[in-house]
Amino acid sequence: MTIEIKIEHTTNKKEKPASMDGVVFGTQFTDHMFILDYDAGQGWHDARIVPYQPIMMDPAAKVFHYGQTIFEGLKAYATEDGRVLMFRPTKNIERLNISNERMSIPEVDPELALEALRQLILTDREWIPEGEGNSLYVRPFVIATEPTLGVSPSRQYKFMIILSPVGAYYAEGINPVKIFVESKYVRAVPGGVGMAKTAGNYAAGLKAQEGATELGYSQVLWLDGVHRKYIEEVGSMNVFFKINGIVVTPALNGSILSGITRDSIIQLLKHWDIPVEERILSIDELEEAHKEGKLEEAFGTGTAAVISPMGELNWQGEKMVINEGKTGELSAKLYETLTGIQKGVAEDPFGWTLEVKA
Amino acid sequence: MTIEIKIEHTTNKKEKPASMDGVVFGTQFTDHMFILDYDAGQGWHDARIVPYQPIMMDPAAKVFHYGQTIFEGLKAYATEDGRVLMFRPTKNIERLNISNERMSIPEVDPELALEALRQLILTDREWIPEGEGNSLYVRPFVIATEPTLGVSPSRQYKFMIILSPVGAYYAEGINPVKIFVESKYVRAVPGGVGMAKTAGNYAAGLKAQEGATELGYSQVLWLDGVHRKYIEEVGSMNVFFKINGIVVTPALNGSILSGITRDSIIQLLKHWDIPVEERILSIDELEEAHKEGKLEEAFGTGTAAVISPMGELNWQGEKMVINEGKTGELSAKLYETLTGIQKGVAEDPFGWTLEVKA
Ligand SMILES: Cc1ncc(COP(=O)(O)O)c(C=O)c1O
Ligand SMILES: Cc1ncc(COP(=O)(O)O)c(C=O)c1O
Repeated sequence: MTIEIKIEHTTNKKEKPASMDGVVFGTQFTDHMFILDYDAGQGWHDARIVPYQPIMMDPAAKVFHYGQTIFEGLKAYATEDGRVLMFRPTKNIERLNISNERMSIPEVDPELALEALRQLILTDREWIPEGEGNSLYVRPFVIATEPTLGVSPSRQYKFMIILSPVGAYYAEGINPVKIFVESKYVRAVPGGVGMAKTAGNYAAGLKAQEGATELGYSQVLWLDGVHRKYIEEVGSMNVFFKINGIVVTPALNGSILSGITRDSIIQLLKHWDIPVEERILSIDELEEAHKEGKLEEAFGTGTAAVISPMGELNWQGEKMVINEGKTGELSAKLYETLTGIQKGVAEDPFGWTLEVKA
Repeated sequence: MTIEIKIEHTTNKKEKPASMDGVVFGTQFTDHMFILDYDAGQGWHDARIVPYQPIMMDPAAKVFHYGQTIFEGLKAYATEDGRVLMFRPTKNIERLNISNERMSIPEVDPELALEALRQLILTDREWIPEGEGNSLYVRPFVIATEPTLGVSPSRQYKFMIILSPVGAYYAEGINPVKIFVESKYVRAVPGGVGMAKTAGNYAAGLKAQEGATELGYSQVLWLDGVHRKYIEEVGSMNVFFKINGIVVTPALNGSILSGITRDSIIQLLKHWDIPVEERILSIDELEEAHKEGKLEEAFGTGTAAVISPMGELNWQGEKMVINEGKTGELSAKLYETLTGIQKGVAEDPFGWTLEVKA
């Protein structure tokens, strides 16, 4: 299969941020975007790169009413020696299609998706910010565009990719955050769509997030929706706990997103011969471990922050301070290693980075 | 408060369907639509009626990525004596704001919403189809339009109303449908967003619906996501069962939508001194009642179909045929009464209809 992507270059380049300091995540976009259309009967067609611009949407488009949409998030990095690296993009494309399948959206050809990433990133190559912690955030997504109000899978879609230059997630460097363990609201449940990266999961979390923010917490930790006691994930991150020397992360049970950073961390830990367990983990077990002084480290993992140490968990008013609120040794080592691989300064034993070449 | 709505009339009227026969639900839209904008700091502003047209959306608009959106659905009817009636619109506006609250969307002024409904319906008055079972389906909705990728409530929204002329939901009249009791997938769970009319709930149901359709069933009956045994609702309808002379409907538990048809049915039944219970109801109880010959009638209730009798329930391969697959007496009476009130031909003892006057 030959993949043809038409490119229409902008004649009106935007100004790039002079520095990434103070640039809020996901607020700046590059000069171009990728679009691919789908029509029932015809399949995906008209792959093109065009100037970044608003799209025309019928007010009846199904995405507005029934939320049939999925997305992905990955990053591209500018290395010190002038190369451009993507981190495990094929994993994101794989997950894109897992999400598509769950949401009754037609599969996107993985090769076309990868080629679209490559060409779009090259087109906006000069938008990738250099420097420690900076990167180009890449957001592929699919929206249902058929303008009809019946509750059924759309017969028209758009697959798009937009790019946003981003700075280090935490401007002050890797610093522990305070987490609120949510006991009122629920994000997802087995049999639902928690394992898909679909819009509704994020809308469902806004209310709890607002409550946590008001109390001075940066994110909520979700418990499972059935027993209301098993740890699931944090905001847009998977979670890991170092308990008595063993690293534990909730098993993928259908309601948790299968994070690519999560997978990378597990592989790194195994590579280092550090014991790691994917299993069910209750808040009671955490509380118990904390009481006994065995809860040594806790951190979230995700594309945006890479590793985000958790310095405090608030569970129904009880505040569990972890590692005296400081970044743990393992968290720091994982952060160094992973960001080193991503930036092309550390060895990449797993072949995780893919160079974007002209 | 004076409510000012600017009106820009179309100069290019579309052709109206000559008959509603064969017109698929929600595929035709009228000549105009209503828009109201929201910006943080400014609040809701610029209420206007404009020609029905595509809207310009930034590809980063939060609704595409995080599904922050809600909607409503109600109907306007043309009576035989030339009046236009809305059915309980203030209940829809109330629920719109309940959904808004859950989804962290700013409240819409109820008076403005009602006035917008009135003026838009009047503007497209000639689009309301006459005749038995025909009506104008009214779809108010709110979408988050802020073009930023942070997962947080939007600081910009659009509240819109679009109108669609619709025929009787079931072309052949009120006829029992076959329902598949879903045991693999789950729609909602307490602590989640099932009680809000938000897009993600509908996206979450598509996969199960597809499976049911393939097996020849018209809708799925959802069980609760925690115990996987209590009846919740059917597709876009609440459900009622007549068991041994008593009408039972699942209680509003946080994961079920509080249907306005449901509420109307309960009031009608009480008015007629027919015993009605809102309570927890398991699929096992239904199965038991069916075995004992006590499951007398079953029907779904919702704005689109009003009353939809269920002639068969398939629960894990076991087919429970209800009332020999025929429409029950009570279902028929409720349908007659409710559609009679809606169309202005039956007495309206509850004051449910609101005339839309110039
Ligand atoms: C709900 C959720 N969990 C976990 C993650 C982490 O996944 P990844 O490591 O692939 O970024 C994300 C997204 O980034 C997410 O949205
Ligand atoms: C999930 C769901 N349940 C029930 C209903 C019935 O509500 P109403 O009677 O207000 O139309 C609807 C919508 O119409 C719905 O979408």
